[in-house]
Formats: sequence, C-alpha cells, structure tokens
Amino acid sequence: MNDVKEILGNYSSEIIESINEELKVITPSSLQEASIYLTKAGGKMLRPALTLITAEAVGGSKENALKAGSAIELIHTFSLIHDDIMDKDDMRRGMPSVHKVWGEDVAILAGDTLFSKAFEIIINSSQEFSTPVQINQALSTVADACVKICEGQALDMSFEDRFDVSEDEYFEMIFKKTGALISAATKVGAIMGGADQEVIDAMYEYGRLIGLAFQIQDDYLDLVSDEKTLGKPIGSDVAKGKMTIIAVNALSSAGDDDRERLLNILKDTNNSQEDIDVAIDIFNKYGAIDYARTTALESVDKSKKVLDILPESSSKQVLIDIADFVLERHS
Amino acid sequence: MNDVKEILGNYSSEIIESINEELKVITPSSLQEASIYLTKAGGKMLRPALTLITAEAVGGSKENALKAGSAIELIHTFSLIHDDIMDKDDMRRGMPSVHKVWGEDVAILAGDTLFSKAFEIIINSSQEFSTPVQINQALSTVADACVKICEGQALDMSFEDRFDVSEDEYFEMIFKKTGALISAATKVGAIMGGADQEVIDAMYEYGRLIGLAFQIQDDYLDLVSDEKTLGKPIGSDVAKGKMTIIAVNALSSAGDDDRERLLNILKDTNNSQEDIDVAIDIFNKYGAIDYARTTALESVDKSKKVLDILPESSSKQVLIDIADFVLERHS
Repeated sequence: MNDVKEILGNYSSEIIESINEELKVITPSSLQEASIYLTKAGGKMLRPALTLITAEAVGGSKENALKAGSAIELIHTFSLIHDDIMDKDDMRRGMPSVHKVWGEDVAILAGDTLFSKAFEIIINSSQEFSTPVQINQALSTVADACVKICEGQALDMSFEDRFDVSEDEYFEMIFKKTGALISAATKVGAIMGGADQEVIDAMYEYGRLIGLAFQIQDDYLDLVSDEKTLGKPIGSDVAKGKMTIIAVNALSSAGDDDRERLLNILKDTNNSQEDIDVAIDIFNKYGAIDYARTTALESVDKSKKVLDILPESSSKQVLIDIADFVLERHS
Repeated sequence: MNDVKEILGNYSSEIIESINEELKVITPSSLQEASIYLTKAGGKMLRPALTLITAEAVGGSKENALKAGSAIELIHTFSLIHDDIMDKDDMRRGMPSVHKVWGEDVAILAGDTLFSKAFEIIINSSQEFSTPVQINQALSTVADACVKICEGQALDMSFEDRFDVSEDEYFEMIFKKTGALISAATKVGAIMGGADQEVIDAMYEYGRLIGLAFQIQDDYLDLVSDEKTLGKPIGSDVAKGKMTIIAVNALSSAGDDDRERLLNILKDTNNSQEDIDVAIDIFNKYGAIDYARTTALESVDKSKKVLDILPESSSKQVLIDIADFVLERHS
C-alpha cells in the first residue's frame, strides 16, 4: 500500500506551478496576492491530484488533466475563501484567512476572481491534450458542482437554527457541499483521460462515495481525535450546535428525556465541558458515533468496488489507497 | 429613430422568462429567492438585449442568443450583488439590496450561484441553436469578462485612497468594470448569430466604446443632472472623493492652488454643499465637465462608425440608436 501523503506531495508541485502560472497575470497586485495566498499556504491538493490520478487510471496521462485539475483546485479555494467569510473562520491552513489579511471586500473579489479563472483555464485547455467535446463536458461538470457547492452551503446555513434535520437532508447537504466537487474532480479526470461514458459515470460515483466518507469522518474526528492532532477542541461541533451525522442520528433514536437533554445542549451557545461530555455520553448510549464510523466505512468499501471497472494499474491502486486514507487520517 | 426604452422593454419579457426558468430549480428556497430578486426588481436589461439585437444584426436570430444573453444578465446581476456588499450600497433598483434583505452571507452565495448558473446556461445551450465551437467561444468571452470585472472592481477600490490616478488608469478601470461585460454582450451576440471573426471583433469594439461612453456619462450626470431625475444628490461622487474622469482631468490640468483646494475637498469625507460647489467651479474653470462630455460623444461616434461593417437592417439601426441613447439618458 502506498503512502498517500507522499503521493499527493508528488503531484502537488506541478499543480501549484500550473496555478501560479495562471494567477500571476491578475492585476492589481493586491488582488493577485489575495488570490494566490491560500495556494501558497499549502493544502493537501487532494482534489486536483484525484483528477490527475483518475486520468492516468482510465488510460490517459496526467498532462491531459493538469489544467482541469488546477481549475478544480481554484474552485475549491474560491469556496474556502467565501465560506470563511460566512462562517467567520479566522484561520485557514494554519494562517489568518484571506478576509483577515485583506478584509472582506478583497476576499469576496479574490474568490470571484478564482472562480472566473477556473472556467477560463478549462476553456483555454490546450487542444493538444483535449477535444472541444471533452472541454465542454469538463465545463459542464464543474459548473454543475459550483451550483451544488452554493446550494450545499446555503443548506448548511439553514440548518443553523433547525434541529429537526433528517438524515436525507444531512446527506444532501454534505454531498452538495463536499461531495460534489470531489466527484467533479474524479469525473473530470476520467473525461480528460479519454474514458468512455460508463467509466466516467463510475468515476463520478467513486468521488461521490469518498466525498461522503470524507465529510462523515470529519464529524467523527471531532469527537474521537485529540485536541493536539485535530488542531481544535474535541466536541467543537457540539459546542456550535452543528447538525453532524452523529447529532442527526442520536436525535432520531434517543428516548424523549435524552433527546431533550441533547437538544438543550445543542441549542446552548455557551456550553461547559461537562455539557459536551453529557452530549458525547448520549451519542454513545445510542450508538451514534459507531453509526457514523460504520457509515463512512461502508461508503469507502462501496467506492473501492466501483473501481472494479478499471483495469489493474498502479494508478488504480492509488485510488484504492486514497479511499482508505480518507478514514485513516486523524485531522 | 427608435424609442430605445420601448425596444429594450420588448426584449426584456422573454429574457426574464428565460432567467426565471433557469433559476427556479435552485434550492433551498431562501437561496432561490435571493438569486432571483434583482431580476424581479426590474432592470433595463440593456446587456442581454444587446446580445439578442447583435445576433439579429449579424444575420442570425434572437433565438440563437437568448440563453447566452440570459447568462450575460446573470453575470451582471452577480456583480451588482457583490459590489453592493463591498460598496455598502443599501438600495438597488429602488429596493433594498440583496444583502439588506437576506444578510451578507446569503448575498455572497446568491452572487456565486448566479455566476455558476451563467456558465451552466451557456454550456447547456441547445445544440439546435449553436455549435460546440460557438459555445466555447461564448464561454471564453464571458470568463474573460468576469476576470476583468473583478480586476476593475479591485482597481476601483484601490483608487479610494489614491488621488494621483492617471487618465489611462481611469480608462483601464472603467473598461474592466463596465465596458468588459457590455463588449462581451455584443461579442457573444455576434458569435451566437454566426458572424465571421472580423464582425465578431467589430461588435466587441462597438460594445467597448458604448461601455466607456456609458460610464463617462454616469460621471457627467452626477454633476449636470438634477437630484430628482438622478435619484441621488448632485455631486455625490465629489462628496465620496471618487476618481471620475472629471476629477482626474481637473487634477491634471488645474494650477497648484486650485489643485490643492480640489484635493482637500475630495479627501474630505464631510463636505458641505459649498465645498461641492467650489469643486464644480474648479471643474468648470478647467473645462473638465466639457471634456467628459466630448470624450463620451467621441466614443459614441466611433462606436457608430464601427457598425459600418454590418449590412443595413432594422437591428443595425437599433444598435445605432442605443449608442445615442447612452448619452441621452438623464439617470
């Protein structure tokens, strides 16, 4: 089995180079700096690496997919910048977020600029590596993901004062907010790698499944990791009253008294550590934490089965390892 | 000569219908309402009408360009929503702006959603009315305009604490902020109407020239209109210390004393009516208001000459009338 972090690292340098190349023409300089800042701050580059690896796994080369992968990362960065404004998150990738450095106005614009650039990059993809039909398919996939990202963020915000969120609604929200772009990343990789429609659809499904597992694992780690590894206090989702899969599951299966106690803690914006521990006890009592873990595992297992459509190759093995990696990460 | 307002009105109903059709699938409902709000509030629909009229003027039909025109209007609306947040403008089209009704977070998202939808609409343009090559050209034009709009807004914001803006910088800013999307509107109309490259380029130039005239006329009306017609106090650009073509021109040609007095008024955020009158006197003394009017007129004249490339038609006449209309409007 591969060291996934090392593999992502191998892909990231050329992706970063490609992104820098595209963004260095932006003027004025403040807008350029704000636009390029989060890429410089470093990230896992999971999404664009998935695009390149998928292109290889379907029989193409990573050169086919480099520009489209860079565009996917710009869409991801755009959504982080705008989400950080909305969620009032002042830190990102260990650094002050864009709106903390340049203010909200420039942060809104930097996001808009990255968004525009992402489409421009795909449209101007070299004809050497892709046909107009491939470019149109890739654009359609990315535009669809962008609409979903906005809808997912709006849904997530609408959950803030709702405590009757169903599991279906939860899954719709995380698919749109997180899964849509990951599945776009793998689908675009398959398109640019020259796969046929059946394989393109399968790679979309693979991305969707690891995207769901990724988000559920986030919910899970918030309760079972440790503060040092996670970089934030354990139970912070409970403190914020967030509708995670764990909260949704526990609220739907708890008895009336426990449900009432849990609701009071989730609605309270000023919880003590003791309150959070009570919530965790209720989660455990109804098996909600195990349920999250099992659901994530099932999603990863399914994602690996979807890969059966691909011929054996080292790139296919990397995709299998990335699926496992989603659940192995601790932060 | 045609009644331009009446003509725009004739085009607007089918454009609004097309936009409503595209936006009604957005969820959740709050995001849909915020996204559709400014279209409902009514606007001149100048940009999409230009797209449809240009398609007709180059020998195509307006059906060829309806989807692309709707997309152009969504890009315009997206930029209005985000600009209103940045510029803290609380009113738009006679109604509270989107961020005043739904808050800044939903306003950011509504803008992002319209942006995504605009690209989706062009990508999914019916093959009945356009070829993949036309769609790619239209997308490329719109993406380029979007980058320029962001750059133009960033430039405009960077002018806020600068009083040494050159005329070249001013023209770059207004071209990017206003001209880029108007020229994209006419260029996309020519593309979708099936024009050859020479005509496409000419229609871009026509759009660029009326876009410049449009913005210069805005600067001019701020000083020569009346408060009731304009809907805001006369001289409000002076009060805000805005670098209009008039301020830029006066600062570059005024003698030292007048320059100093004008600078003090522009830098002051708390001007009296008397201060504003002094600034207007200085503008007049150095011919800066006449200069703006002459520059706008020249731009309109050039834009009409560019239309010589088109065969005579009623749609061509409408384009000529729209160029004149830009300078006839009083608000």
